Amino acid sequence: MVVVGASLGAAAQAGGEAAYPDGYRRWVHIKSGWIGEGSPAFPRFGGMHHVYANPKAMEGYRSGTFPAGSVLVFDVLETTPGPGSLETGVRRQLDVMEKTAAGWRYGEFKGDSHTERSVTAADGVKACAACHTKMGADSVISRLGDAAS
Amino acid sequence: MVVVGASLGAAAQAGGEAAYPDGYRRWVHIKSGWIGEGSPAFPRFGGMHHVYANPKAMEGYRSGTFPAGSVLVFDVLETTPGPGSLETGVRRQLDVMEKTAAGWRYGEFKGDSHTERSVTAADGVKACAACHTKMGADSVISRLGDAAS
Repeated sequence: MVVVGASLGAAAQAGGEAAYPDGYRRWVHIKSGWIGEGSPAFPRFGGMHHVYANPKAMEGYRSGTFPAGSVLVFDVLETTPGPGSLETGVRRQLDVMEKTAAGWRYGEFKGDSHTERSVTAADGVKACAACHTKMGADSVISRLGDAAS
Repeated sequence: MVVVGASLGAAAQAGGEAAYPDGYRRWVHIKSGWIGEGSPAFPRFGGMHHVYANPKAMEGYRSGTFPAGSVLVFDVLETTPGPGSLETGVRRQLDVMEKTAAGWRYGEFKGDSHTERSVTAADGVKACAACHTKMGADSVISRLGDAAS
């Protein structure tokens, strides 16, 4: 029974949803970029994005293997063009990837919502993992860069 | 003699240079923006900028008055245009404002240098403070925004 329980627990975790990343705005800011209408990524990720990493994910960038508990956020804000400049506006979506004992799971929260998901963990297997496993190192596309300093 | 020494110490601090903000890449990321060639700010601040705040500056955003020891960084990175997108490249400059017992002092470090100053504290009285005192709340132009969450 203990073994069955543990097995169900792992399955539940693997099938569960990535948690809303409470407090991520105080995590380390890894990098940013902007995606405009001329980019093929615009429909999904248009606007200014910021990548944030929790302390376990910081270990992962350094070692190359992200430990369970690593969480990365890809925060997407709309931009409003000023005179020759770009200012950030409202949050479009918050994408999250969370490493569990069973591997990475993905999710996306709509706008500023902590509960409304525009991508579930089940969706993420196709919508997110397909590219992340190809493009990333341990599925993480960004590099630590000057956030290492 | 003690009084004279303390007085000289305060004068030295007021006249001294803002320190290079060691570890600022792990401070809270407040906001970002992009300034292009169409902006009048381009010659001085063109590129992507990120604002970072140390813990004392975080108190300042909340209370409206920044305590001595508050440090804010305005980190300016060159951007290279991709297909409809902007990626950040090398560091153009790092601007810093530091609150001392005598008030704010300003400085700017060239590129990735921790020592080469493109704006000294003496320059900053004119080059930085003139606008900051007009536009800012306690001379700070940015607002805490969603970094409060």
